[in-house]
Amino acid sequence: MFNDRLRDVAMQVESCLAEMLLPLGTAPVAEAMRYATQGGKRIRAFLVMESAALHGVSDAASVWAAAAVEALHAYSLVHDDLPCMDDDDLRRGQPTVHVKWDEATAVLVGDALQAMAFECLTRPELHPDPSIRLALVASLARASGAQGMVMGQALDIAAETSTESLSLDQITRLQALKTGALIGWSAEVGPVLAGDDPEPLRRYAGALGLAFQIADDILDVTGDAAKTGKRVGKDAEAGKATFVSLLGLNGARDRARSLVAEAEAALTPYGGKAEALREAARFVISREM
Amino acid sequence: MFNDRLRDVAMQVESCLAEMLLPLGTAPVAEAMRYATQGGKRIRAFLVMESAALHGVSDAASVWAAAAVEALHAYSLVHDDLPCMDDDDLRRGQPTVHVKWDEATAVLVGDALQAMAFECLTRPELHPDPSIRLALVASLARASGAQGMVMGQALDIAAETSTESLSLDQITRLQALKTGALIGWSAEVGPVLAGDDPEPLRRYAGALGLAFQIADDILDVTGDAAKTGKRVGKDAEAGKATFVSLLGLNGARDRARSLVAEAEAALTPYGGKAEALREAARFVISREM
Repeated sequence: MFNDRLRDVAMQVESCLAEMLLPLGTAPVAEAMRYATQGGKRIRAFLVMESAALHGVSDAASVWAAAAVEALHAYSLVHDDLPCMDDDDLRRGQPTVHVKWDEATAVLVGDALQAMAFECLTRPELHPDPSIRLALVASLARASGAQGMVMGQALDIAAETSTESLSLDQITRLQALKTGALIGWSAEVGPVLAGDDPEPLRRYAGALGLAFQIADDILDVTGDAAKTGKRVGKDAEAGKATFVSLLGLNGARDRARSLVAEAEAALTPYGGKAEALREAARFVISREM
Repeated sequence: MFNDRLRDVAMQVESCLAEMLLPLGTAPVAEAMRYATQGGKRIRAFLVMESAALHGVSDAASVWAAAAVEALHAYSLVHDDLPCMDDDDLRRGQPTVHVKWDEATAVLVGDALQAMAFECLTRPELHPDPSIRLALVASLARASGAQGMVMGQALDIAAETSTESLSLDQITRLQALKTGALIGWSAEVGPVLAGDDPEPLRRYAGALGLAFQIADDILDVTGDAAKTGKRVGKDAEAGKATFVSLLGLNGARDRARSLVAEAEAALTPYGGKAEALREAARFVISREM
């Protein structure tokens, strides 16, 4: 059920992204933008479209918010992979944009994808009421900007150059900003589009986002590059504090499992209708645990 | 008149930018964002607020669009100055962000300023009708993204590494994208907020934007770093085709003057009310010609 829906979401989102990129033709930056938006798990898009479906909002509407968050996520990956940031050569099993093209192209691709994300949210298909679309522009700007994702990335980079290790509280806050803010935004799109209370999905996304990051830290220790599509073992190599270094492998697994239980419990008000979201929560920690 | 208004616009915009940056506190990225948004001529903000005043829109409303375009312009400068792009150490007479901090901070500052630009356009003060604010989000995304400013910058970088020199038509198109798109967006804010015909200001901005760029090329030959606040002579050094290399110094001056006359002529429908915009057009070519 979850896997079918994930595939279906990915197809719909990719068709929107292709439509947005079509007018750009074959300019080098357009090719690199297409490359950067390909692949990935599309978890954020899934959260957008599944939270929307749960609140009676059609896929034809919510897919534009899903395309927005996937474009925004793609921009953040292209910039995070730059040599001056995390310096990654491999992403989703393919060379990163600055490796395949060059650093200037990677900077510009990220910049253009961010603009495209906000443009997706202006599409009239998303909601008949422009004030709702505008609210999503404002909340995506906050979730991705200097009070959200960018601050998380800045804290992460500062931690790498610092001699003091982060505490569990500090890492939890860092991750809530770096990955949690966008995951939270995604899960709240449904209630926002429907004018309903976002609280249950906000709690779900808070627990899910943290579980997702703990699973990533575990994968960095137990995974291999062939399966994860990116370089592994680099946290330990960099002497970086992670959930695994702070909690141990078993402690991290236990914490991830209890967060997934917490995420599932937050969905109680939705009853059986939220089964795909429950499966999603179990999925994020199932990879290689 | 123009100078007084420019100072007044700068003060109002800086107060909005300070308000947007206030919640960020003293985090390193916030300090660098404040630094990156300081100074500059504020020509784009002036165009926004003066075009708005011309259409009966209050400063208290239009200043949020002015803050948006100045935040967006600041992001583009921070990214353009990066070593992998134009590699500039000096901007507005001060060390560039990647020199004063580091490249990672410069990437993140630009990313966060772009998000902040779009957030400024969601402010209710800008216009009571959310569909108008949303239209400005969509048009700013297009003007700054892969079909506008980013494409101009990509063409500029491609030209630098190419063995073939650009023709006059190619440079004109490049500049229309790289700087013209944002200048055009700025000048059209007034009519968009008022629901009036943007055509006269569109023609004004088209001529002004090109005159501005020709004046910049002239300054790169005749100016000095102390007055321009940035490194000069680098176009010739890089063997780059410019309006001066293609038209000669006198030819470029003539072309800039005729564009200013064209810009002034486009303002005819506004009569005497558009005097500050006329002065602005004369100002952009008065620096060191």
